[in-house]
Amino acid sequence: MFSITPTARLRTTPFLEMARKEGLTNAMVYNRMVLPTFYGNPEEEYWRLINGVSMWDVSVERQVQVTGKDAAKLAQILSPRDLSKCKPGQGKYVPLCNHQGTVINDPILLKHDEDRFWFSIADSDIWSWASAIAAERGLDVKIEEPDVSPLAVQGPKAVEVIADIFGDWVRDLKYFWFKELELEGIPVALQRSGWSKQGGFEIYLKDGSQGEKLWNIVKEAGAPYDIGPGSPATPERTESGLVSVGGDTDAHTNPFEVRLGQYVDLDVPDDTVGIQALRKIAEEGPKRHQLGLKLEGDQPAPLGLAWEDLTSDGQKVGDMTNCTWSYRLQQNIGYALISREVQAGEKVMVQRPGGEVRAELVEMPFI
Amino acid sequence: MFSITPTARLRTTPFLEMARKEGLTNAMVYNRMVLPTFYGNPEEEYWRLINGVSMWDVSVERQVQVTGKDAAKLAQILSPRDLSKCKPGQGKYVPLCNHQGTVINDPILLKHDEDRFWFSIADSDIWSWASAIAAERGLDVKIEEPDVSPLAVQGPKAVEVIADIFGDWVRDLKYFWFKELELEGIPVALQRSGWSKQGGFEIYLKDGSQGEKLWNIVKEAGAPYDIGPGSPATPERTESGLVSVGGDTDAHTNPFEVRLGQYVDLDVPDDTVGIQALRKIAEEGPKRHQLGLKLEGDQPAPLGLAWEDLTSDGQKVGDMTNCTWSYRLQQNIGYALISREVQAGEKVMVQRPGGEVRAELVEMPFI
Repeated sequence: MFSITPTARLRTTPFLEMARKEGLTNAMVYNRMVLPTFYGNPEEEYWRLINGVSMWDVSVERQVQVTGKDAAKLAQILSPRDLSKCKPGQGKYVPLCNHQGTVINDPILLKHDEDRFWFSIADSDIWSWASAIAAERGLDVKIEEPDVSPLAVQGPKAVEVIADIFGDWVRDLKYFWFKELELEGIPVALQRSGWSKQGGFEIYLKDGSQGEKLWNIVKEAGAPYDIGPGSPATPERTESGLVSVGGDTDAHTNPFEVRLGQYVDLDVPDDTVGIQALRKIAEEGPKRHQLGLKLEGDQPAPLGLAWEDLTSDGQKVGDMTNCTWSYRLQQNIGYALISREVQAGEKVMVQRPGGEVRAELVEMPFI
Repeated sequence: MFSITPTARLRTTPFLEMARKEGLTNAMVYNRMVLPTFYGNPEEEYWRLINGVSMWDVSVERQVQVTGKDAAKLAQILSPRDLSKCKPGQGKYVPLCNHQGTVINDPILLKHDEDRFWFSIADSDIWSWASAIAAERGLDVKIEEPDVSPLAVQGPKAVEVIADIFGDWVRDLKYFWFKELELEGIPVALQRSGWSKQGGFEIYLKDGSQGEKLWNIVKEAGAPYDIGPGSPATPERTESGLVSVGGDTDAHTNPFEVRLGQYVDLDVPDDTVGIQALRKIAEEGPKRHQLGLKLEGDQPAPLGLAWEDLTSDGQKVGDMTNCTWSYRLQQNIGYALISREVQAGEKVMVQRPGGEVRAELVEMPFI
């Protein structure tokens, strides 16, 4: 496209120099920070995630740390999901909504203790959001961005690498549960998690000055399993049906429309942000739903850079919110955010910049 | 550095194709959108701004539009500057602060009418900030991002270009005042403003589909004055002493520390966000202040990519928040955010990645 000028406004990561040494060629910007993406061979990097083990600099998954007397209270106020049974050391996937019930982020909430939580966020400013609500409600909390940068280890062989580093106990760690510990003097939190469906862990580095050391420990432990660099892979996450908030959602998308209704508990306290709106939407029923799209054609199509109209008999019925070549299906696939009157099994036309393309609506995940 | 992968997460602008045709080589990301920066010759682009006229795609200056019965009330609640005398058609520079009195953005507020305002923002998410406060206080407003993208015309000859396009009345337009009008069928707002001290205007395009047409009108009208493409120029803004919120400020910087105290009115209503904290800071006196730095050496130094420590007798006394080569002073200059115990005229050491450099503290602006 063009080069991005380095500025103080675009933050680097503790692992970036190591990523560069691995041959980093491309990056994205996410939470005002560099997200390393490709290392010269996107297809090879994809298959490494599917069949082996891959290590990702996902420092951009920043932490919104909430501490203080009212930390648990604020965590529940921000979360339309019941946290009353959440235990220290447990994580929960939570779609955060605004007062209108629109999804604004979908962090993993990590409960360290009653008075200390992390929201491990997607790409939007939750620090000022949470600070505004806390201050307006007069809560006794401190909201900060701590020096924490996750390194993800993903793929079917990830558990072997992590067990070799941390010990066999990690095999029993439940999904989203985590443990804070030291690794050769490096303070980390280890969690079973990661933005793929291939299994894996995230090592939250709690000292940015030790990025090189942690990277090398993982790289060496992974060598017997042919570990290599990678990144959250659009083809894999699309095949797996993972939602990208801010990509697959817009300023008017509620959780019920994008298969996140299962993470909303309508009986959370009445002072939870957005719950009144969410109850109303649930009662009336959402107007759109999210389905998969299988596009006709057997050649990789250009990436969608914006939502593209979906039409039926010349009328707009929804939007295609993402599109990618599936290496496993050998087909272009994507997501539809579409009127509930249109169902899986039906066909629609995608109004692509290069001309319209026929597509079949399917249930997700694709694989 | 490396290429940025185009994704749905990085928004393009209505002028971007035109910028590319002009030979765009570099860009920044700002408000999740592409900010075109260089066109192959940064020094030539700098001198064009200083001596002639330059056109900039500053679509990234997004508008937070507040409409509705309580719009004026919310505008004042968010602004620690007295808006009671602000008239329709008038703009005001406003440092927005959080409840702790920290500067979080510094938009130009455009008052269209009592029930319609735009905050033309710097690089941070004011939509969700404003939405949170409005909803928590139960105000009757709608907060949106309208289809509005500014094109700046800057430099001493900008007024000639704008007068040739819009008529001689623009010569009498006062600073930050604006007018909504049509230009050959293109809906725009024309304002005397822009992020330089070289004079100029911003044309707020109100229909993203007409970017190419507007770009060409300005380019043709500017041809007799040798107009060319450019961007907000770090050397010029630094020489001129303009503050870059989010660059020169951090999560703990109040307006009094960065020469923005003149835009704070301590007698705004008590329900204004942050005013209690700002009154306290004003009474106690801020602990830091912002001064200019003239670095020793006569060769352009590497750009600062993060804040760098300022020391005196080996003790940290502040931070250098930006650094650039001044073409007019033929010297590296920057800003210090430094203890008030250290004054202009004194010397400090800048702890640069390549070794320490001596610098003199001076009052701003440099020129």
